[in-house]
Amino acid sequence: MPTNQIIVLDSRPQGEASASNFKLVTADTPALQAGQVLVRHHFLSLDPYMRGRMNDSKSYAVPQPLGQVMIGGTVGEVVESQNSKFQVGDKVVGMGGWQHYSVVDGDAVGALRKVDTTHVPLSHYLGAVGMPGVTAWYGLVKIINPQAGETVTVSAASGAVGSAYGALAKARGCRVVGIAGGKDKCDYVVNELGFDACIDYKEHADAFSLAKALKVACPQGIDGHFENVGGKVLDAVMMRANAFSRIAVCGMIAGYNGEPLPMSNPAAILINRMKIEGFIVSEHMEVWPQALAELGNMIATGALRPRESVAPNLAAAPEAFLGLLKGKNFGKQLVKLI
Amino acid sequence: MPTNQIIVLDSRPQGEASASNFKLVTADTPALQAGQVLVRHHFLSLDPYMRGRMNDSKSYAVPQPLGQVMIGGTVGEVVESQNSKFQVGDKVVGMGGWQHYSVVDGDAVGALRKVDTTHVPLSHYLGAVGMPGVTAWYGLVKIINPQAGETVTVSAASGAVGSAYGALAKARGCRVVGIAGGKDKCDYVVNELGFDACIDYKEHADAFSLAKALKVACPQGIDGHFENVGGKVLDAVMMRANAFSRIAVCGMIAGYNGEPLPMSNPAAILINRMKIEGFIVSEHMEVWPQALAELGNMIATGALRPRESVAPNLAAAPEAFLGLLKGKNFGKQLVKLI
Repeated sequence: MPTNQIIVLDSRPQGEASASNFKLVTADTPALQAGQVLVRHHFLSLDPYMRGRMNDSKSYAVPQPLGQVMIGGTVGEVVESQNSKFQVGDKVVGMGGWQHYSVVDGDAVGALRKVDTTHVPLSHYLGAVGMPGVTAWYGLVKIINPQAGETVTVSAASGAVGSAYGALAKARGCRVVGIAGGKDKCDYVVNELGFDACIDYKEHADAFSLAKALKVACPQGIDGHFENVGGKVLDAVMMRANAFSRIAVCGMIAGYNGEPLPMSNPAAILINRMKIEGFIVSEHMEVWPQALAELGNMIATGALRPRESVAPNLAAAPEAFLGLLKGKNFGKQLVKLI
Repeated sequence: MPTNQIIVLDSRPQGEASASNFKLVTADTPALQAGQVLVRHHFLSLDPYMRGRMNDSKSYAVPQPLGQVMIGGTVGEVVESQNSKFQVGDKVVGMGGWQHYSVVDGDAVGALRKVDTTHVPLSHYLGAVGMPGVTAWYGLVKIINPQAGETVTVSAASGAVGSAYGALAKARGCRVVGIAGGKDKCDYVVNELGFDACIDYKEHADAFSLAKALKVACPQGIDGHFENVGGKVLDAVMMRANAFSRIAVCGMIAGYNGEPLPMSNPAAILINRMKIEGFIVSEHMEVWPQALAELGNMIATGALRPRESVAPNLAAAPEAFLGLLKGKNFGKQLVKLI
């Protein structure tokens, strides 16, 4: 049995999360039972939703239990199998958590999925061809449902969700405008991801200033918006929202530490006859096959070339996660485990 | 030609509207051209949307022009006709404005509609079987789309929209909880309109207190809400909103005077995967026949017995309108003109 390294949640954050909330522990991997599979993780995915799980408060998910392995998406390779559906060497994606190995019931629905790495690098199954990509797809296709010629926007545009959103929206004939933090990210969003424009929110002290920049970048107004952040970005977008515009709400990262995050002018919902809808992609498994097919094809053909930020090992995961919450990552944040 | 009395918008409000913004003037009614109809108004409808029209600011409608007759729905009787579709004595509903007579092009689509007063009193075509009733119908049926057994709420429950909403929701097997101002209105909402419960928002100083009362009145949480008011009512409802709940936004009356009216916790949209949608019923004319048929039947059978507040004459319209904005009316606010 190989020795496993595990990061557990050791304490809940009071306000901002810190590295001291996590603890690295060591344990043996247990012997496999019938039907089980031992997976060695190659990459761990770090995602903003994990911050919400660290709190012991009402949310859409149960809190992360203290003293147990942190939840997280993983890609890896089957190294032992007591299940005829999985062979040693199979590449798989699952929810293995912040650790080197996981033991998985190969018969549990959705627990482990074999993936093909012929045209798609394994790590992308945690990003563009995984949960973040499907998240972008659901918000754009199912909530915003844009028509060709419409203008759509997205906050955190350089991230895993934003980059997929941009490619999906361009494929539908939209004008796509990103919002991101810093000149480097904005240059990447325009020059490498192919957005029509990108606004650096750090250059704007308040929502009014940001709204002016949006007016320049979106001369026909905004028909659809994908919200990963909330706060002044959402306020600014609502100032430029067209009649019958749609906002898909996927993240409110600025509010995860508990500070109040009001929406300044909800009357705009009525004035512009807007639709604002929150969603969690894991509650819409029915769209995953269609979304993954389109996203995988975009990666295979090079229509989407997302960047990755890769932390070098498991011990570096907490700092990488805290950096993600502050926007320090550039593209999909991963942890390399092998 | 009869002499007409007309109330025009004389000046735009700075902050709160006042009676001095209006002016009563006298004019002759013009001779009819071919195709035109002269209508003598029996009742004028007063509605919150008129306050928005008094401002010269971006909204979903063009501002009310200064010096011209105030916009408004009317019911009345044809007294002269140069149009073969309308006979003297026909009862009609239209947008005649704040005046005794209007000259209408009988061929303009939607300008004038004949109504049957055999089972429905004429005035109700301005309320339950008119724009307010269809407004309730659209928000409930097309946005909230409740299932039997769900709990739905409405602010301004004793008003024209709220009363129709309650009857429509009860007919669909919902638990219906109203929010209204004062014990008299709440008693009326429960005892006469048949709501399951009603909360007096005046008894609650803030959204948290109101949310506690909602928890008692809605033990299964809130699945759908119809918002006529905004502000603390909306904040409180969002604290009790269930997963996948829907909010139809029809009014933000508390914000019409220009004061900021933030939504305290938009993160609830994500946490509860809510849908919040604004609408204007005049943009959905396709539903009117179906909605009016159901609403007319509810009036004819006595399933809905809405109250009316009736101002005695045209000169009393401005004060009645200002009272409506402060919730002084009890049920549908009308002005009797004959």
